[in-house]
Amino acid sequence: MTRHQIIDQIIAKRSFLCVGLDTDIKKIPQHLLKEEDPIFEFNKAIIDSTASFCIAYKPNLAFYEAHGVKGWIAFEKTIEYIKANYNDHLIIADAKRGDIGNTSAMYARTFFEEMDIDALTVAPYMGEDSVTPFLQYENKWVVLLALTSNKGSQDFQLLKDADGIQLFEKVLKQSQQWGNSENMMYVVGATQGQMFEKIRQIVPDHFLLVPGVGAQGGSLEEVCKYGMTEECGLIINSSRAIIYASQDKDFARVAAQRALEVQQQMSRIIENKIN
Amino acid sequence: MTRHQIIDQIIAKRSFLCVGLDTDIKKIPQHLLKEEDPIFEFNKAIIDSTASFCIAYKPNLAFYEAHGVKGWIAFEKTIEYIKANYNDHLIIADAKRGDIGNTSAMYARTFFEEMDIDALTVAPYMGEDSVTPFLQYENKWVVLLALTSNKGSQDFQLLKDADGIQLFEKVLKQSQQWGNSENMMYVVGATQGQMFEKIRQIVPDHFLLVPGVGAQGGSLEEVCKYGMTEECGLIINSSRAIIYASQDKDFARVAAQRALEVQQQMSRIIENKIN
Repeated sequence: MTRHQIIDQIIAKRSFLCVGLDTDIKKIPQHLLKEEDPIFEFNKAIIDSTASFCIAYKPNLAFYEAHGVKGWIAFEKTIEYIKANYNDHLIIADAKRGDIGNTSAMYARTFFEEMDIDALTVAPYMGEDSVTPFLQYENKWVVLLALTSNKGSQDFQLLKDADGIQLFEKVLKQSQQWGNSENMMYVVGATQGQMFEKIRQIVPDHFLLVPGVGAQGGSLEEVCKYGMTEECGLIINSSRAIIYASQDKDFARVAAQRALEVQQQMSRIIENKIN
Repeated sequence: MTRHQIIDQIIAKRSFLCVGLDTDIKKIPQHLLKEEDPIFEFNKAIIDSTASFCIAYKPNLAFYEAHGVKGWIAFEKTIEYIKANYNDHLIIADAKRGDIGNTSAMYARTFFEEMDIDALTVAPYMGEDSVTPFLQYENKWVVLLALTSNKGSQDFQLLKDADGIQLFEKVLKQSQQWGNSENMMYVVGATQGQMFEKIRQIVPDHFLLVPGVGAQGGSLEEVCKYGMTEECGLIINSSRAIIYASQDKDFARVAAQRALEVQQQMSRIIENKIN
């Protein structure tokens, strides 16, 4: 998917919401457990009910790997279902991969070639040759971890060098030599609201994938205030706050309602900030 | 597996070799391709022929995920085969995972609980709460990336703070508050031979998992000179140089020969350095 296609979708839907498919068998409604593939059935219902209000889906691999082979089947079926029915949606595999060159190349082949997924989250710790194999595919995206939403982000990402430059800034700066705003996005947690201004000075055009709104406590308004560009430049992920809004039989309807509320909020922000 | 059990095995076998199961369908002997599960058949033959000369196996998840569901089946069968037939061997899943707390907890459950694997490689970029969920399991190991063997390790891992402390040193220091030498090892690439002295000042007792000997050009002698402790403290991984030593029908025999050569070299080093 091209940058242009993402922006078109944001404008058409007046939404920059990504629904995170962190599907946990322990949290989905009881009545689904009698289905042959409860995780896929849950995802299917969530996707059908939220597709109009979001532009992207982000399945988190951990939740699928937790079930081994069965989990991979559910993951692959979910990807196929989105592609078959909602192929304007960006699919981000949240896998946080990154390894030496030949291994990263292998992961790239899996996610981009075999599964034809649009985007993959990648961890930067191992540097250039761990990231560039993912950048060899046209219209595919690396979503590089920069400043994450969790408490542990303070342990290393905020470390300052002798010139006062923090590690996440180095990641933002250096990685712009590897990719560009057509094939690279960055993960910046919504819990780091005040940092978006600084980040936009380094990456004025790149899309930022923003987790941490909702269950983790980040503020949509603050993120948009400091992080939004003329082309939006933000994809806001919400997982638990939408998909587990109800854990009863009405889960899909309630998830749709929650996604609609976020979309309406986003529509107002787009109105004020961009149009 | 306990630290004690690992050390006992090193002493008994006079080896600290880990065989990396980076099994690539494009590199395994042609005649295996007619098997129902070529990757598993390859692994089985390699394991049977090398088990006497090594103390650990390290399947690299990328190579299994590349085949989706089929790959996961091959991975699980490989784990089960090692556990059933060579249960004194340490099994390290090379997955380089690491995510926000609830997601890391999910990965930990998968690898340590469901699959009962001994050790998992983990990336430190997201800090404490991305690592500690893996440390909640008794006799299981986090193998944390510190200084990797690839060229890209220079991009961020060597960055110095205002006091001249490099990022990988910070990782070594800070993570000792999360775990100890009974549940944590570190990845240090063999290509960084000269750095082992510095590393041993920070982590005198921890086991180091050392990739990069062989195909990547690191020197076993140099690593042992600077990195070996009285209890060995090293697990040296070799993947391609052993498992693809021959790509013909004699692949298992040649892999055994290569593993034996490394074991003999290790035996001499143990003789000189420890006994």
